[in-house]
Amino acid sequence: MRCEIIGIGTELLLGQIVNTNAAWIGQRLADVGWDCLRQTAVGDNEERIATAIREALERADGVILTGGLGPTQDDVTREAVARVAGVHLVRHPEIEQWLRDRFSRFGGARMAEMNLRQADIPEGGQVIDNPVGSAPGLIVEVGGKPIYAVPGVPREMERMLEDVVLPDLAARAGQGRTIISRTLRTAGLGESWLAERLTPMWESFKDGGVTMAYLASAGEVRIRLTAVGGTREEALNEIAPVEAAVRETLGDIIYGLDDETLETRVANLLMESKRTLSTAESLTAGLIGARLTAAPGSSEFYLGGVISYATEAKVSVLGVDSDLLAEYGPVSEAVAGAMAEGARRVFGASFGLATSGVAGPAEQDGQPVGTVCLGVADANGTTTSKIRAPGDRAQIRAWATTSALDLLRRRLEGKA
Amino acid sequence: MRCEIIGIGTELLLGQIVNTNAAWIGQRLADVGWDCLRQTAVGDNEERIATAIREALERADGVILTGGLGPTQDDVTREAVARVAGVHLVRHPEIEQWLRDRFSRFGGARMAEMNLRQADIPEGGQVIDNPVGSAPGLIVEVGGKPIYAVPGVPREMERMLEDVVLPDLAARAGQGRTIISRTLRTAGLGESWLAERLTPMWESFKDGGVTMAYLASAGEVRIRLTAVGGTREEALNEIAPVEAAVRETLGDIIYGLDDETLETRVANLLMESKRTLSTAESLTAGLIGARLTAAPGSSEFYLGGVISYATEAKVSVLGVDSDLLAEYGPVSEAVAGAMAEGARRVFGASFGLATSGVAGPAEQDGQPVGTVCLGVADANGTTTSKIRAPGDRAQIRAWATTSALDLLRRRLEGKA
Repeated sequence: MRCEIIGIGTELLLGQIVNTNAAWIGQRLADVGWDCLRQTAVGDNEERIATAIREALERADGVILTGGLGPTQDDVTREAVARVAGVHLVRHPEIEQWLRDRFSRFGGARMAEMNLRQADIPEGGQVIDNPVGSAPGLIVEVGGKPIYAVPGVPREMERMLEDVVLPDLAARAGQGRTIISRTLRTAGLGESWLAERLTPMWESFKDGGVTMAYLASAGEVRIRLTAVGGTREEALNEIAPVEAAVRETLGDIIYGLDDETLETRVANLLMESKRTLSTAESLTAGLIGARLTAAPGSSEFYLGGVISYATEAKVSVLGVDSDLLAEYGPVSEAVAGAMAEGARRVFGASFGLATSGVAGPAEQDGQPVGTVCLGVADANGTTTSKIRAPGDRAQIRAWATTSALDLLRRRLEGKA
Repeated sequence: MRCEIIGIGTELLLGQIVNTNAAWIGQRLADVGWDCLRQTAVGDNEERIATAIREALERADGVILTGGLGPTQDDVTREAVARVAGVHLVRHPEIEQWLRDRFSRFGGARMAEMNLRQADIPEGGQVIDNPVGSAPGLIVEVGGKPIYAVPGVPREMERMLEDVVLPDLAARAGQGRTIISRTLRTAGLGESWLAERLTPMWESFKDGGVTMAYLASAGEVRIRLTAVGGTREEALNEIAPVEAAVRETLGDIIYGLDDETLETRVANLLMESKRTLSTAESLTAGLIGARLTAAPGSSEFYLGGVISYATEAKVSVLGVDSDLLAEYGPVSEAVAGAMAEGARRVFGASFGLATSGVAGPAEQDGQPVGTVCLGVADANGTTTSKIRAPGDRAQIRAWATTSALDLLRRRLEGKA
């Protein structure tokens, strides 16, 4: 099954926005084993959009359009699809009513008539509901091949793809019509290390109906398992033994599932046990604090931190023993542990979390670039670790941030 | 003049990487007034690449290819271009020698013969030197229209575009062959505010040879002026009066030029005068510290900071007067000033910089979401300001970070 993706919007061509939608859809198509041989971006021009759709339908079994479904005159995806299908646009009264209701619910005074363009659907087409925005999506068949049109706003596009477009494509391919993905999240290890560990177990599953994808970012790798089934249960049943085997192989390297981030996991563990956290950051210089507070509600567990960037500040602000510092040097497990204990004391928190290391570009105190020492302290004592982070300065700092949060996660789970 | 962009790489279709190159090139083409009516991405397949090139040449006056120039067998852009041109690939001995020299300079033991594929150029084609990587670029003319092939690595692609491809396109369009851009960087004001201020002066320039583009990110807007001329001097002479008029209109809202970031500007001002900085962050919770230390060498001026996330930490760690805190509340100019003074004292720095505010999603202490108070302190006293940042939680925090750095920049320049 082949499917092409066409991004619509002059702002894409002018480079005002990057076409992340194409990458997202490309990943999801690959997950279910479909080929995408071409991605295209065209401007807000009815004729050029129609031409691009016709060309795509000649090569592929279906085409997904993103963008151009807004209420203004420059949004002409609806018109272009109707032109390709050789039909007229027909106003749908139930969408019109839904738009009017939605508008008044959001406190709009009087809806501009222009907005009703979003209720126009090519004759014979199907509507895709938009639970998170105002532009409905479309499915129109031409020569037995589906054209899907979804909004360009990533959140709205993703929702329609997951709920309607991908299942519809699956059904057309005779794969069933439910697509389920489970994403196991790991921290602190590289993609190649994980792939090597998982290769033996994958032998028994690779010819089955489940696909496995690795999605890597600094210090974290997500392992996404996807199956297509006749029903949700069927798909889940296909994934279950693979997931169990991955979990057995990786153990507590897996910290979370699907959308649960490392900071969310840590936040939940702290809040469940009504404990608090403070930080002492050297090479990460605020990255841990910023990440812990990215989501609202973080004041419930995060008290604050010290960025002890100058070595002297480790002594004067965090109270690290100057003899210890002289003996082991600032980039050492001993000092990272003392920094964590210092952060805990300064803020009166249950836990202190500390980083010290060499972000580069030059080595420091005889320690090579990428050396990172981490410490976690609570009333029961201190856990430290020393790792070697890969990459450039930004990657080393991101890796250190992730590894520190993961050390705390393990400690909170009673595993460090 | 019309130009199309084709991204080459199966990893683009699988969504493993996002096609940021297309957006970057789209911006630069717009800067010099060329139309880009279509962007395409295709996989590493010789026939499909050749087809995409042929189609693009039918619609446009030139085509830019990115990617597929590496040494491995899956990199087939060279072959595809040769096929479209109807010529053979010819090995260039001078590129071969350059590759061998480069390889031994980077400490390689023995270069794999495969790497020499990068010395193969379609017969009659021109080579684009790669000063920052190993893959040379190509220019091949077909039916009088140029095909440019450049690497997919953004840094290498950008360099070849700026140095060779854009000037060559300009020369073919009879615009001259030197393209100059000057980017004036501003902070703390929105794009629409700036556009409104600049509209009257722009009236006298809009029909001239200079284009103006606004590039916005949280709390910062860059104004890029671009001209094409016969020589560098001609282009600069075209830009000069426009730049002067923009500078006269905006005054010290402009903090820097081209690649100079706000944090670089602040760092340079501090280092030039041998002064040091410490921070006290509440809603930004480490974002300022992280940004100040993103570049190496920051330990020369940045001593560290306190993330006073819990209100109590403002008193216990930063020494903010508890009566002051009770009177004005944590989100106030008075407390931001006292936090800045506290940071200065705790770290013994020349300057203290502080943020306190409401990142949302809910209002706090009667202050609406987006309220941000900033403070800068040095031995001569304290400067504070109160702003209303737009957007969601992440945008408000980014805006607060930028505005704080800009307040410090103005103080260091003697303007606050």
